[in-house]
Amino acid sequence: MLSKRQSKYFKSLQLKKYRQTEGKFLVEGAKGVEEVLQSDFEVEALIGTSAYLSSLAENLKSKAKETIEAKETDLLQVGTFKSNNTGIAVVKIPGQDRNVVEEKGLILALDAVNDPGNLGTIIRIADWYGIKTLVCSMDTADVYNPKVINSTMGSFTRVNVMYADLKDYLSKSDKKVYGALLEGESIYKTDLTDGIVLMGSESHGISEELRPFVTDPVKIPGRGGAESLNVAVATAVVLDNFFRG
Amino acid sequence: MLSKRQSKYFKSLQLKKYRQTEGKFLVEGAKGVEEVLQSDFEVEALIGTSAYLSSLAENLKSKAKETIEAKETDLLQVGTFKSNNTGIAVVKIPGQDRNVVEEKGLILALDAVNDPGNLGTIIRIADWYGIKTLVCSMDTADVYNPKVINSTMGSFTRVNVMYADLKDYLSKSDKKVYGALLEGESIYKTDLTDGIVLMGSESHGISEELRPFVTDPVKIPGRGGAESLNVAVATAVVLDNFFRG
Repeated sequence: MLSKRQSKYFKSLQLKKYRQTEGKFLVEGAKGVEEVLQSDFEVEALIGTSAYLSSLAENLKSKAKETIEAKETDLLQVGTFKSNNTGIAVVKIPGQDRNVVEEKGLILALDAVNDPGNLGTIIRIADWYGIKTLVCSMDTADVYNPKVINSTMGSFTRVNVMYADLKDYLSKSDKKVYGALLEGESIYKTDLTDGIVLMGSESHGISEELRPFVTDPVKIPGRGGAESLNVAVATAVVLDNFFRG
Repeated sequence: MLSKRQSKYFKSLQLKKYRQTEGKFLVEGAKGVEEVLQSDFEVEALIGTSAYLSSLAENLKSKAKETIEAKETDLLQVGTFKSNNTGIAVVKIPGQDRNVVEEKGLILALDAVNDPGNLGTIIRIADWYGIKTLVCSMDTADVYNPKVINSTMGSFTRVNVMYADLKDYLSKSDKKVYGALLEGESIYKTDLTDGIVLMGSESHGISEELRPFVTDPVKIPGRGGAESLNVAVATAVVLDNFFRG
């Protein structure tokens, strides 16, 4: 059974400073737990109700270094969910060697997207469209924040998320940079090929210092009264335009 | 100044049962308040900080039947925001005569979208694409829920949201019904003209009893590992496909 000491330790991983010192993060709920057990992430511990643990296939369960039985109330103590009758995985944060920018295919870059729910939804969208690499500015939300991980619905296992000084990153790249800007060209009329798709924050758009790197400013034509779209929604629409062929 | 009695009364409008008996709802924050003052909604009361009220243009402020000065802490008491240094509008719920289905243009229908944030985001998306009518199943979230209103960013003033028994509604319509279904045809290859776009709930999709009314099942082709997209995200992508021409 889960001890009080363990409970307190795992719960501390909700906070970035403990995730950084311990090099671990939490994944909550059946969908996320199963996705991470199937991935190449290292699962340090699997905490679950007796019923949930016995329902898991042996080859999945054996991927966890340690299995700890817990009550539902324990899971609520450790994690952030309001209800959880399945489990929580404690997962090792992968080293930077996992985070090599793939040079092939479309790359998504985020400038200061600091809402965890938006980042999680964007990772799920990237995964839907088969984007392998997401480059985030240093002030984008932390991918290992439980709210981000949980809203990816398991997609964090398939998208490499790296953090970089975007000014530095973009200045070294010779790819096209499609930047979502309200004053851009209609995305319906833009020639969309491989490159970098750069999305800015909802409140401030792409920051001034990054605008000079945008080679192809694009906008989603609106026909109604709304002034803007949510950044995750806009990301999906922009990506869909690349793939509709 | 706002009295304790008024504060309690306005706060009660956070709950559906009081919204229904009183016929009023809340709009929080500068963006929403200004949008509603510019619209044809009837603003029963405008509660605001002294600084905010004096910053508002007289022709906007005069749209409110009553203006009540309040402290920031009062605004947090009445509303749902974690911070609000501007105002809250108390608005009359419009009669059903406002909710006539426009027969021209694309209509959006939602089946059991019960997350308030998703409904609000979808209203904002509908407004972006100029959709005038949103028909919701009876078990879709309440549009006058503060979370819905606030996440529309003012777009609730431009989109008519009505509630109907969708089975009844669809059975009486002779329009095409484009239904988002995982087993649908690629939306990239579907002939998209006017009609009804039907989106199901994230967890269950379009309900069994409504599927027979779908004339054109469509799906957004995925290329990666994610099993689905968030319903608001999927709505935006589907609508964008209609308008990209």
